[in-house]
Amino acid sequence: MEAVASKPVIKAVALCGSTLRKGSCFNHGLRSAFQISKESVNGMEIEYIDISPVPVLNTDLEVDGTFPPVVEAFRQKILQADSVLFASPEYNYSVTGRKLSSLNCSADKAAAIVSAGGSFGGGLAQYHLRQIGIYLDLHFINKPEFHLNAFAPPAKFDSDGNLIDPQSKHRLKEVLLSLFAFTSRLKAGNC
Amino acid sequence: MEAVASKPVIKAVALCGSTLRKGSCFNHGLRSAFQISKESVNGMEIEYIDISPVPVLNTDLEVDGTFPPVVEAFRQKILQADSVLFASPEYNYSVTGRKLSSLNCSADKAAAIVSAGGSFGGGLAQYHLRQIGIYLDLHFINKPEFHLNAFAPPAKFDSDGNLIDPQSKHRLKEVLLSLFAFTSRLKAGNC
Amino acid sequence: MEAVASKPVIKAVALCGSTLRKGSCFNHGLRSAFQISKESVNGMEIEYIDISPVPVLNTDLEVDGTFPPVVEAFRQKILQADSVLFASPEYNYSVTGRKLSSLNCSADKAAAIVSAGGSFGGGLAQYHLRQIGIYLDLHFINKPEFHLNAFAPPAKFDSDGNLIDPQSKHRLKEVLLSLFAFTSRLKAGNC
Amino acid sequence: MEAVASKPVIKAVALCGSTLRKGSCFNHGLRSAFQISKESVNGMEIEYIDISPVPVLNTDLEVDGTFPPVVEAFRQKILQADSVLFASPEYNYSVTGRKLSSLNCSADKAAAIVSAGGSFGGGLAQYHLRQIGIYLDLHFINKPEFHLNAFAPPAKFDSDGNLIDPQSKHRLKEVLLSLFAFTSRLKAGNC
Repeated sequence: MEAVASKPVIKAVALCGSTLRKGSCFNHGLRSAFQISKESVNGMEIEYIDISPVPVLNTDLEVDGTFPPVVEAFRQKILQADSVLFASPEYNYSVTGRKLSSLNCSADKAAAIVSAGGSFGGGLAQYHLRQIGIYLDLHFINKPEFHLNAFAPPAKFDSDGNLIDPQSKHRLKEVLLSLFAFTSRLKAGNC
Repeated sequence: MEAVASKPVIKAVALCGSTLRKGSCFNHGLRSAFQISKESVNGMEIEYIDISPVPVLNTDLEVDGTFPPVVEAFRQKILQADSVLFASPEYNYSVTGRKLSSLNCSADKAAAIVSAGGSFGGGLAQYHLRQIGIYLDLHFINKPEFHLNAFAPPAKFDSDGNLIDPQSKHRLKEVLLSLFAFTSRLKAGNC
Repeated sequence: MEAVASKPVIKAVALCGSTLRKGSCFNHGLRSAFQISKESVNGMEIEYIDISPVPVLNTDLEVDGTFPPVVEAFRQKILQADSVLFASPEYNYSVTGRKLSSLNCSADKAAAIVSAGGSFGGGLAQYHLRQIGIYLDLHFINKPEFHLNAFAPPAKFDSDGNLIDPQSKHRLKEVLLSLFAFTSRLKAGNC
Repeated sequence: MEAVASKPVIKAVALCGSTLRKGSCFNHGLRSAFQISKESVNGMEIEYIDISPVPVLNTDLEVDGTFPPVVEAFRQKILQADSVLFASPEYNYSVTGRKLSSLNCSADKAAAIVSAGGSFGGGLAQYHLRQIGIYLDLHFINKPEFHLNAFAPPAKFDSDGNLIDPQSKHRLKEVLLSLFAFTSRLKAGNC
């Protein structure tokens, strides 16, 4: 009975998205979470998982449905957990963008986004990128938007990855013309 | 005069967020954008910038306000451009998450987010992470939320990064208790 | 010349989304904006537009491309303005939801969303509604999602508004089964 | 036993956000959901709740913690339900904005948002409003942002609702100057 009582009922893994910057995880309060969990949350065991050795996933590395050992080890930890505690960093108003941070010299420029993918054609990412753009002070064109469902008929790309669908090509051209016009207008308006 | 006319008026840089996966940029239509721009958008010059050599920014590397050469070169390209064309990848309903993709074994688990930062205390990133969680099939607790403005008085952390603010510690504890309870409930409900 | 200088260069209209609650616009700072604008922003004239007489738009009222007089008057004000200043209310983590506020008795319930429309089939609204659901403490199912592009072939609805597309009907059924299962699980887990 | 089996285990309420437009609920698939639920989801009972008589909530009407009868009846339906099925309309890329729809004559104008509230000071609503602005083709200023936590010290408003906090007044002025400058630039750039 005591044995049962001492068994952890809930296994949580804690992930910190910002391992690169020295000490930042602590700043995000994970260390405090461990301490508090031990003292006050009876029956929960939190294991910290270091994601720094996990490569930025190159899906081309996934061969025959298997992952590199370091990724597989990470996945096993997750699979065996009951819950996940994120210590979320914030970069430029979103969860990502450490590369995008290099863009914060892009203030006050015109911008546009094109994307292709399944379902919404990358549209969901576009709205997040637009929010990041507020922080970076980018002026996105509003119209037209270009999010291409690459898998819906008719065929959008040939086997070399060239965009071949006439309607999509026309729309892409309109994006470029809109970006051109808006950039020109913002530049001219500065004079 | 003709010289003036032939000069590019608008300089755009094109960035592709997904250089790792072979060929994906082409899939996102940047190649087509170049082609179309040359043929149909008079006065715009698009330069593709390879962001793969740009390290995931380690802000600790920024010393005395200067950046590593590869980052500085990237920044100069951006600074000299008039506009930016993004070919946005989409991972898990957002612009990021190549590391998060390793989490798609986390389906059907309970989850919580804690963050600290300036202004909204990382809150904006949390809502993006929650959207990613729909894709990953995570069940986030709704309350309490924990986004800590680390810079507003009173002091939240000591010099070692320990959370010292009693109110914040209490709230963090409530997050953990809520995660514990919701995880237990989801597990019990499966029986 | 002085006449030119004294002419307002920029005409802004100010809109307040929360006119119903007595005094709330003032709380949102519009009154202060007027005052500050007059004192410190030379060349901008802000006109407050009362949106309370504007009916919640019933698009069926738009007959032969004309609007009811009160709506038309509102549109003319907007059309003649150079810029728009919003005093945004916030309800339940979004811009809307005065009706949704009645739902804040819905805490701790399972929920699902279905939508139909053009383009993303209402998908963008769904992600905003999910954010509102954090505030209302709703537990949304993650999968499957149901956002139906009602205008893409094959025909989704018959002339009576019945969903007739077999694939869509199958997916809708899966939404309901998922909602059923998740609700059952949350209820059972409470015991 | 059979009696038990025939009892509904799960009670869901279905809400449609767009009752005004004739027939739109059916278009959103709720009717089909009812049909499918009856045929295929054993143990779930869906009740449609008409939200059209629910007034756009005037919180000033809530007296001594009680609601008008029509609101109270609505709340009781929700309270007694196990789950909620939303048929979400989409207006201008969000869940709201039937009034905002009147703004779609505002294309190509500069815009800014100010808000005040608890916690994030209305900031979350601002990002949703910005997404709506893509649809309406508004060009929002990026900086500065103005979301005022009205309840954090020091006092932001006097008892008459005047903004009195000097720092907030200064920031509001900067918003107006930024809106003025951006509007001027967009207008000048059109020449």
